[in-house]
Amino acid sequence: MDQQIILYAIPVSGILALLYAFMRASWISRQPEGTETMATIAGHIADGALAFLKREYKVLIIFVISVAILLAFANSNRSGTSPIIAVSFIVGAFCSALAGFFGMRVATKANVRTTNAARTGLADALNIAFSGGLVMGLSVVGLGVLGLSVLFIIYSRMFPEISQVSEVINLISGFSLGASSIALFARVGGGIYTKAADVGADLAGKVYEGIPEDDPRNPATIADNVGDNVGDVAGMGADLFESYVGAIIGTMVLGAAFVPVFSGMGIDPVAGVMLPLVIAAVGIIVSIVGSFFVRVKEGGNPQHGLNMGEFGASIIMAILSYFIIDRMLPATWVADGMIYTSLNVFWAVIIGLVAGVLIGIITEYYCSTDNKPVVGLARQSITGSATNIIAGLGLGMMSTGLPIIVLSIAIVASSYFAGLYGIAIAALGMLSVTGIQLAVDAYGPISDNAGGIAEMAGLPKEVRERTDKLDAVGNTTAAIGKGFAIGSAALTALALFAAFRQQANIGALDVTQPVIMAGLLIGAMLPFIFSAMAMGAVGRAAGDMIREVGRQFNEIPGLREGTAPAEFAHCVDISTKAAIREMILPGLLGVLVPVAVGFTSKEMLGGLLVGVTSSGVLMAIFQSNAGGAWDNAKKRIEGGIEFDGVVYGKGSDTHKAAVVGDTVGDPLKDTSGPSLNILMKLIAVVALVIAPLL
Amino acid sequence: MDQQIILYAIPVSGILALLYAFMRASWISRQPEGTETMATIAGHIADGALAFLKREYKVLIIFVISVAILLAFANSNRSGTSPIIAVSFIVGAFCSALAGFFGMRVATKANVRTTNAARTGLADALNIAFSGGLVMGLSVVGLGVLGLSVLFIIYSRMFPEISQVSEVINLISGFSLGASSIALFARVGGGIYTKAADVGADLAGKVYEGIPEDDPRNPATIADNVGDNVGDVAGMGADLFESYVGAIIGTMVLGAAFVPVFSGMGIDPVAGVMLPLVIAAVGIIVSIVGSFFVRVKEGGNPQHGLNMGEFGASIIMAILSYFIIDRMLPATWVADGMIYTSLNVFWAVIIGLVAGVLIGIITEYYCSTDNKPVVGLARQSITGSATNIIAGLGLGMMSTGLPIIVLSIAIVASSYFAGLYGIAIAALGMLSVTGIQLAVDAYGPISDNAGGIAEMAGLPKEVRERTDKLDAVGNTTAAIGKGFAIGSAALTALALFAAFRQQANIGALDVTQPVIMAGLLIGAMLPFIFSAMAMGAVGRAAGDMIREVGRQFNEIPGLREGTAPAEFAHCVDISTKAAIREMILPGLLGVLVPVAVGFTSKEMLGGLLVGVTSSGVLMAIFQSNAGGAWDNAKKRIEGGIEFDGVVYGKGSDTHKAAVVGDTVGDPLKDTSGPSLNILMKLIAVVALVIAPLL
Repeated sequence: MDQQIILYAIPVSGILALLYAFMRASWISRQPEGTETMATIAGHIADGALAFLKREYKVLIIFVISVAILLAFANSNRSGTSPIIAVSFIVGAFCSALAGFFGMRVATKANVRTTNAARTGLADALNIAFSGGLVMGLSVVGLGVLGLSVLFIIYSRMFPEISQVSEVINLISGFSLGASSIALFARVGGGIYTKAADVGADLAGKVYEGIPEDDPRNPATIADNVGDNVGDVAGMGADLFESYVGAIIGTMVLGAAFVPVFSGMGIDPVAGVMLPLVIAAVGIIVSIVGSFFVRVKEGGNPQHGLNMGEFGASIIMAILSYFIIDRMLPATWVADGMIYTSLNVFWAVIIGLVAGVLIGIITEYYCSTDNKPVVGLARQSITGSATNIIAGLGLGMMSTGLPIIVLSIAIVASSYFAGLYGIAIAALGMLSVTGIQLAVDAYGPISDNAGGIAEMAGLPKEVRERTDKLDAVGNTTAAIGKGFAIGSAALTALALFAAFRQQANIGALDVTQPVIMAGLLIGAMLPFIFSAMAMGAVGRAAGDMIREVGRQFNEIPGLREGTAPAEFAHCVDISTKAAIREMILPGLLGVLVPVAVGFTSKEMLGGLLVGVTSSGVLMAIFQSNAGGAWDNAKKRIEGGIEFDGVVYGKGSDTHKAAVVGDTVGDPLKDTSGPSLNILMKLIAVVALVIAPLL
Repeated sequence: MDQQIILYAIPVSGILALLYAFMRASWISRQPEGTETMATIAGHIADGALAFLKREYKVLIIFVISVAILLAFANSNRSGTSPIIAVSFIVGAFCSALAGFFGMRVATKANVRTTNAARTGLADALNIAFSGGLVMGLSVVGLGVLGLSVLFIIYSRMFPEISQVSEVINLISGFSLGASSIALFARVGGGIYTKAADVGADLAGKVYEGIPEDDPRNPATIADNVGDNVGDVAGMGADLFESYVGAIIGTMVLGAAFVPVFSGMGIDPVAGVMLPLVIAAVGIIVSIVGSFFVRVKEGGNPQHGLNMGEFGASIIMAILSYFIIDRMLPATWVADGMIYTSLNVFWAVIIGLVAGVLIGIITEYYCSTDNKPVVGLARQSITGSATNIIAGLGLGMMSTGLPIIVLSIAIVASSYFAGLYGIAIAALGMLSVTGIQLAVDAYGPISDNAGGIAEMAGLPKEVRERTDKLDAVGNTTAAIGKGFAIGSAALTALALFAAFRQQANIGALDVTQPVIMAGLLIGAMLPFIFSAMAMGAVGRAAGDMIREVGRQFNEIPGLREGTAPAEFAHCVDISTKAAIREMILPGLLGVLVPVAVGFTSKEMLGGLLVGVTSSGVLMAIFQSNAGGAWDNAKKRIEGGIEFDGVVYGKGSDTHKAAVVGDTVGDPLKDTSGPSLNILMKLIAVVALVIAPLL
């Protein structure tokens, strides 16, 4: 097939994704919202989510424009660089922000419609919730591929003065920085938002007497539900958008030197550069096909349907990638004195896919209510909250072992097959079906919201039971999704790191050199500082929330009795302000440290990247799994847990001890842990972007 | 001066240390024990400590003999190695075990005599407690220097077939492995022991009704007091013995190639090899001199006296090291194409000394009751234990920042001045006054014990007030000591790492190579697994303890009423058994992983060392400071803390929340955190020892 046709087919797949997402979104909108109360509550949540996005995007516009000017300025009048990189940056930021906007708008429509569908049955409810997630998933991959491929086509066509494909990709790397900027705001800010509301709502009852926790009268409940959308839908979406785009660009950069140049097109497009875009484009189609497998019979287990979709898509993708790679790459070739084969590149993709699935399964093992770790943790709650916390910390730390071994094997094996390009394309393999993966992830918070709405609207018990069934599955998919997000972030960071080295002309990075060792140590320290900042932010913002809840209960007559409505918007506003205020310092840290270190010594920056990735992935797994396990240990106890003949259940001291663990785990798993995914990639992408300047 | 005289003067300083320690120990023994009750209680503690040591040493003998046989076997019939290394290993293990034995015997005599002295005044009490610590400190440095220097002299004289000084040092490296083995048992096993007793005693009251926490009737209290000696005296002693010996040997290995060979002695001794021994020997004398500065007037602050001793010794050491280095090294010389000067080597020593002091001060800032971090943590307890835990985790993570920056600067600066030798001798500089540093550390648990005895013996309030005053200072010195132990462990691990590379002929360690990157990731993961194991061990052992306490309260008539004595020995036995059982798996992990990785690829082992050091130092600081801060936040609340006009004190809900944090922090700061010091050094020393075999 003509390479030119392939090149123009890539953005078409992105458009397809957006069209299909639009179809599903329209279908969701046409579903009934249910009772008036339900519509009102859902309206509050949707308004709150929109208010957050508006405020966030206002700050973002200033941030993006400032960075764009800096980028343009820094890349002027230097050979091998161009101020056009600022355009890529703006487009990247815009695509990510737009994907977040689409996803969240639809999620806040899907939640109440899922509740309404659950009034009559399970199948339709699952379908709506999953469709909501699918819109997020397809928006992310669609805008990612569309944006990147259009930039690639334009740059290589419109600017004839750019002769080298590597220079084109260098310009495109700005797209990745844009994606990272949005991810920083959406994931870190969103994480602070959601946990400030959640922790604040939970603790208000402790501080002020007579304020019920988890009660519709609690003014922070709407903010809590908004938080699910802000953190778990938009935040997760921006996180995976960053990984997805980072993996594609990292592979493109390395591809420029990987496969011998082919002829035929204007800018000497090389197969190694186009391959990641093609895999991503095909992955979009496969994700759409996979979404048809997601079905559940009345009374069946929704988990089964979701698994069918995900695993089905993964298997199809594995098979298709064989044919893609076989067609696009020569059967064997020699580069840098090494012999490569297309078959080996295929194996690297498979390694990434399998590693992603394995990390998900391991995460599920450590966090699921049915397995030994969480059951043990629940039992440790019998002796009080201290033993619950100690055991949870231990569980989280222990859970780093297997994922790191999987990652290490993936790194060694994929590079054995195809060098550094192998590591990068393994990352892309892991992310190739992000469309459906993210759909399954985002399905979780939508179901969670649906349950919250059922509770607040006072719907009959069986509705809540159905949404609980959806939500329980959502917890498992959330755990798997978090493991997947961390694994892909680590591989993406490594791909970007390899790309950085190529662009910065760093051959070897000898850690025995003191400067590099110091860079590594400082890099390894950053995830600790970043986590501490995120936790501190949640603590402060939750404090603000607690005081506001107390004020409303004292000042609004009738609120306590349930006769007057709470001022939900105030609480939403507090979370929003706090999230944006608290995000600035860690954000600056993530951007300025690599710049400062890089201009001191580019080798030291290399060491910093290694340090931040190694310690970042460990701290992310530790925090995410500890938090997930605490959450499920609490749930497990609510179902009743037996020890030495005694059963401990909801309301017991054991349950209270487990609630402490759950509260501690909240910011770990939803704020500080996930924010490390962003930190790893952000620092790597900043390094990649400034590489030509060093 | 003749180099030969210097060489023979080194062991003399070691003997001097032991003689002086013996003098002080005899003086302590001659002090009165006080009332019969006091003597009985102290007897229980001393018996318990001895019982632990006996059991531990029984297991140790089997372990040491097995490893010695393996070592001898592995080093037979290979050029450049010799089975004599097994002898060094046995001697190293013996010296460390003996130092631990001396220190603990005297500590368990000093505790009750400190209590008795506190019945009349503060000055004598401080003197006894400090003297007890000094015996530990001088035993460690005395046996360390004596053992190492005698082996050096014997090997270089008795075995004329060993012609190269580097081969002699290679044989001596077994000494360091012996020290590491004991450290593993003493620090990890001791840490599990002490916290199983402490946590078990605290929680028994929660699980069984009517059992008082912190009450003399609680059968676990004696085990708790034994634990202070086992963990904080013997464990800390073995930890610093390992660092001390590791830093000396690491510097000796690097010294063999650092300074041009001088003539005059049988085996071509080189100045760079002897310098670390001389600095250590002089450091012993300086520590003894420093101990004379430790005085307190009645009504004065004991902290002042201890500071005088430590800082005085550091300053004298700094001045003397200038003259030592000036005499021993040429003014300038060229090696490997670089110009070195004796003055620059001196600066490297000073950098180490200063870095050690700075890390201590930073640790104190984060853990002291008077500073912002702990006060903030105390206030976060007002909203319950969840916010207390979140804030403590955040504090611990945040506290990694400054120490890592200090370490990074120390690494870059010391190697700027004197290459890798500079890093190693900076580690030694930090450890040069270990004698008095450890004396101040070990003073803490002795004072703590003294307070416990006063409580259990029902002495008048003013006695407890005096011991509390000593103990409060002990908490600060403990925090500083922990920071110092971590910093020195990290630098020692780096010194050993550099020595390993030299012995294994590894030039550069390019982390961009996938195998090295995988080694680094796996290495960085080990501290998480090790910590998780240690925490799990404490949890399980504490559970055993809780059940035993419950059994005694149910089965011993009169125990609840205080008319019958508890079976203390049973509790001591449970802690002992648990400690030894639980230590095996992490111990094997620390030994087998580097061996397995090393024989796969020595470069991968290099990556592993970098990973384990970087993540180990971070996790150690995080856990140690979080634990220290939780402990002091609880103490701070006991003194009453004000917020928004309300004062929260002992017995309040705020206090209860802080107690949860304190209990969580216990295993973090006293078991899993400190055990990482051992892990870092152990893995590096195993690598160094097996280096010639790879």
